[in-house]
Amino acid sequence: MPRRTPSGAAVLQPEITRSITEAVLCELAERGYARLSMEAVAKRAGVGKSALYRRWTSKKDMALAVVAEFSVGRAEFVDTGSLEGDIRESVEAIAQWLTHPRFSSILADLVAEMARSPELSDVVEDMIGRPRRERGRAILLRAIDRGEVSPDIDMELALDMLAAPIYWRLLVRDGSLEPGYLDGLTEMLVRALGK
Amino acid sequence: MPRRTPSGAAVLQPEITRSITEAVLCELAERGYARLSMEAVAKRAGVGKSALYRRWTSKKDMALAVVAEFSVGRAEFVDTGSLEGDIRESVEAIAQWLTHPRFSSILADLVAEMARSPELSDVVEDMIGRPRRERGRAILLRAIDRGEVSPDIDMELALDMLAAPIYWRLLVRDGSLEPGYLDGLTEMLVRALGK
Repeated sequence: MPRRTPSGAAVLQPEITRSITEAVLCELAERGYARLSMEAVAKRAGVGKSALYRRWTSKKDMALAVVAEFSVGRAEFVDTGSLEGDIRESVEAIAQWLTHPRFSSILADLVAEMARSPELSDVVEDMIGRPRRERGRAILLRAIDRGEVSPDIDMELALDMLAAPIYWRLLVRDGSLEPGYLDGLTEMLVRALGK
Repeated sequence: MPRRTPSGAAVLQPEITRSITEAVLCELAERGYARLSMEAVAKRAGVGKSALYRRWTSKKDMALAVVAEFSVGRAEFVDTGSLEGDIRESVEAIAQWLTHPRFSSILADLVAEMARSPELSDVVEDMIGRPRRERGRAILLRAIDRGEVSPDIDMELALDMLAAPIYWRLLVRDGSLEPGYLDGLTEMLVRALGK
């Protein structure tokens, strides 16, 4: 049964949503979160501002919905049946997320803005941080079930270990991933997290 | 023998350097690197702009010299005689560096700016990244000498592992370090890096 459209609500056209999403990502990459404006996004997407306000109530909602859609979908990992295999999939997916054209500067900007705004920080945690960590948690819970990881592991610390080195390397050190980096990282993480 | 002052060069008064340094850190924390100006720093420090230009040739030189002085000095670790002890000292020092009032927003801003400017990125690497990593490298070389770490270890990856989780936790997840976090991290890092 199709979901009932609330009476009076406009139907949101997917192709317009897609052009707006693309415009938000471009504006974020070029100008950063602090200088992002609804006007500039509407102009770049070739729509009226009302098209934006039908979808999101504010600049913050709009930017984070777009960044979250881009980010959370990239944290779906297959179950490879082993801790090593699952960690390899996970670090590969994180590396692809963070090396996506435009995205490293978008994320670095958002993080800088978060240091000034605890409210923004909470929303990023709800919309991006927590959903992504749920995917990582699933890897560790499966490994605990198989007896590869101790049930006493500090889950939050373990999740930090999975994501942090690639972020550090790509965004803070602004480096590249040499061939073999993700293999070496996987090996160290298996030793760090395994029994 | 005192160092000879080049003829015609002004003597730099240390107390003026200290007020300028303090002003640079305040301005960076409040306004960020992109909006930092020599004018605002001079005004806040109560000096003329010439006092700044006698010390540094540009805003970039000034900002990075101050941030580097603040950062590199905080990476001096004592030799505790064991890998575990040295890693514990190192993660403690990194945590103190990154939880220093004002500093987390200064660093997050600089990282965001680096994503837009490869040149800035290179200078940060020369003035902060490389000197700090030399201190971490010394820990690992001593552990290799004692036979606690394999001589074949991927040194750059190992150095990423030492710094990344605390940065991720404090600046990206914008979280706090619960009691026991650094102990748990040390334990995981010893397993990851040790033989």
